[in-house]
Amino acid sequence: MAEGVTRLIQGGVTSAQGFAAAGVHCGIKAQKKDLALVVSRVPAAAAGVFTTNKVKAAPVLLDMERVRSGQGQAVLLNSGNANACTGEQGMRDAREMARLAGEHLQMVEDLVYICSTGPIGVPLPMDAVRRGIPEAVRHLGADGTAAAEAILTTDTVSKTGAVQVTVGSQVVTVGGMSKGAGMIHPQMATTLSVLTTDASVAPAVLNSALRRAADGSFNRITVDGDRSTNDTILIFANGEAGAPEITGPGDALDAFQAALSVLTGGLARAIARDGEGATKLVEITVAGAQTEEDAERAARAVANSLLVKTSIHGAGAHWGRIMAAVGYSGVDVEPDRIAVKIGPVVVAERGAGVGGPERLEEAGEHLAGENVQVTVDLGVGRGEATVWTCDLSEEYVKENAGELS
Amino acid sequence: MAEGVTRLIQGGVTSAQGFAAAGVHCGIKAQKKDLALVVSRVPAAAAGVFTTNKVKAAPVLLDMERVRSGQGQAVLLNSGNANACTGEQGMRDAREMARLAGEHLQMVEDLVYICSTGPIGVPLPMDAVRRGIPEAVRHLGADGTAAAEAILTTDTVSKTGAVQVTVGSQVVTVGGMSKGAGMIHPQMATTLSVLTTDASVAPAVLNSALRRAADGSFNRITVDGDRSTNDTILIFANGEAGAPEITGPGDALDAFQAALSVLTGGLARAIARDGEGATKLVEITVAGAQTEEDAERAARAVANSLLVKTSIHGAGAHWGRIMAAVGYSGVDVEPDRIAVKIGPVVVAERGAGVGGPERLEEAGEHLAGENVQVTVDLGVGRGEATVWTCDLSEEYVKENAGELS
Repeated sequence: MAEGVTRLIQGGVTSAQGFAAAGVHCGIKAQKKDLALVVSRVPAAAAGVFTTNKVKAAPVLLDMERVRSGQGQAVLLNSGNANACTGEQGMRDAREMARLAGEHLQMVEDLVYICSTGPIGVPLPMDAVRRGIPEAVRHLGADGTAAAEAILTTDTVSKTGAVQVTVGSQVVTVGGMSKGAGMIHPQMATTLSVLTTDASVAPAVLNSALRRAADGSFNRITVDGDRSTNDTILIFANGEAGAPEITGPGDALDAFQAALSVLTGGLARAIARDGEGATKLVEITVAGAQTEEDAERAARAVANSLLVKTSIHGAGAHWGRIMAAVGYSGVDVEPDRIAVKIGPVVVAERGAGVGGPERLEEAGEHLAGENVQVTVDLGVGRGEATVWTCDLSEEYVKENAGELS
Repeated sequence: MAEGVTRLIQGGVTSAQGFAAAGVHCGIKAQKKDLALVVSRVPAAAAGVFTTNKVKAAPVLLDMERVRSGQGQAVLLNSGNANACTGEQGMRDAREMARLAGEHLQMVEDLVYICSTGPIGVPLPMDAVRRGIPEAVRHLGADGTAAAEAILTTDTVSKTGAVQVTVGSQVVTVGGMSKGAGMIHPQMATTLSVLTTDASVAPAVLNSALRRAADGSFNRITVDGDRSTNDTILIFANGEAGAPEITGPGDALDAFQAALSVLTGGLARAIARDGEGATKLVEITVAGAQTEEDAERAARAVANSLLVKTSIHGAGAHWGRIMAAVGYSGVDVEPDRIAVKIGPVVVAERGAGVGGPERLEEAGEHLAGENVQVTVDLGVGRGEATVWTCDLSEEYVKENAGELS
């Protein structure tokens, strides 16, 4: 494999050397797996990106504390309960989880991170968690499948992936798992993701590589515009591939960054496609903006518009709703320069419709598919950005109007 | 009636003296009424508030031009077509509508305003409009019912109202009609509203009174967060009640402002309650914020959260979703000071749940009703604001995923 060329492989959070994982049912949920553990054989460089929501769950506050050291060795994750808005008890519970995991793993507890996801405002059933931790430790192994299942909430499928790239003469692997669905949004806020690599990367470099990868992936997806109290992306780099440490800019960092970005891009699109009730992956590109920031802002407005999302669900080529969303995005536009393309079909130019009913029918055929592309050209510059979202279906409403889940 | 005391009366856009209206079917829609006309016997002071969307429909651009004169005498409104994103042809069509209405009304065309609502990006069927204008003129009369019907789109009910107040020794009337549903949002953007009064008000005073009334009403409702290309509020004051002209601050303006604000508040709540697919009117109050702006911003975030709106639809007391929305609103908060009340039931205090499952059940009973109140106390100041919205139902998605309507 040529240096810097990335290669997707089957795999996940245990694909990189020196990582093991487990996923068990401990009783937070009635039946499904609800506790996951990811462990590195040796202490690793660690970095994290956390929700920008000012109301942060206890485990987020704990991890933000931990990550300052730049070190980590394990993550314990539970689904079925967010441990958010749980006051001081929530913080005590998160700390106890880390302490117990450290004990059973015979590991410094400061190297243990915690992630939680599920309903907000409900105290953690700690008896179940206490029973589950030793069981998860007993189940640690080379297969990451159960761990990826144990972190799901309303997701319909597991999201895992792995990428290899040659750094120097050494092949390194970056793998990971995510949970998403519902409550996924711009501004970092997104989901739980645990990424692992056997590359050796200095903590500060790992931190900026993770931020760059997240900016082009997890931060560019949006399902319902809400930002969660618990969103967390963690990465551990344990150096077990034996490649030289990446300490700053250069070919090695470029290769690692490419692999990491391919992985996070794939995981992010998998999350968007699996938004609650979603039937389509929708890619919104805004080009011709004055700046990339403007392009992103306009693309987000389109991606978050309920009217756009419902019309895509119904495969109706209502390009006027797209124009309207661009118009209220806050971005400076000249309406009579805007062009809109749905898939390959130009439906509006210079701010007005072109091509008549046949054209709209053709665009509707594109919208009926599972992969939808919408492109808006603002015609005022060279800024361009893409965001990913899904359609909005009746199913979304049913899921979220239902029981605590 | 004591001076300054407002009194709600049965009525609408023709309740004030010297106004007539009509609503007819001209053929923009298949069957329903689609063309409305409101006319003052004499030229009136006029003011307007228009969408902040940068993509503005042709009639909005026309009205913004007209309103600079501070004068108006008639409004011609059509439903079934927004005449937005229709390029130069759209502007020509809007001008022709005003010219034709002026001819048939024997009125200076510059005093005729135009409003349109319906699908975006479709050229107006001008043949139908040309036929409809003389017919609307023929049907002009003292009953505003048909006009209020002819402006509806996905609304399920007409929204009309009238208020009387004594100014000096004279009773003056303020009445109006609105259409709403879907695409209703913060920042002015809202709906079509035509307000009429027989008070005599100087144009500049009328303009600021309208802005103040809109800020506390139409600008405080939100259905789906989208802002339309067409939102318009117009007011005409024709002085036919014979009360002295209101030219500046004082008791007379206070009385008039009170009446106008009562009317716009009632119309705005009627719009929120009739949001597409809505089953409830939801009032979100945020108190204890550092400023009123902060309170409004946090209240809007809660009101626009799909997770909050769907859980209210399902009558689930998911107060954590309310906390999360406050957390990402951008307002400075201290999570452990936040309290949440659903109806009269305190469900969270100091950032954590109180009262257990029985309490949530009690809160759920409140949410099951048709009038829902949510109160969030941020505990950091005295700023307070209320916004109105509705729940989000499967019906919303069905309506908006469907045919162009």
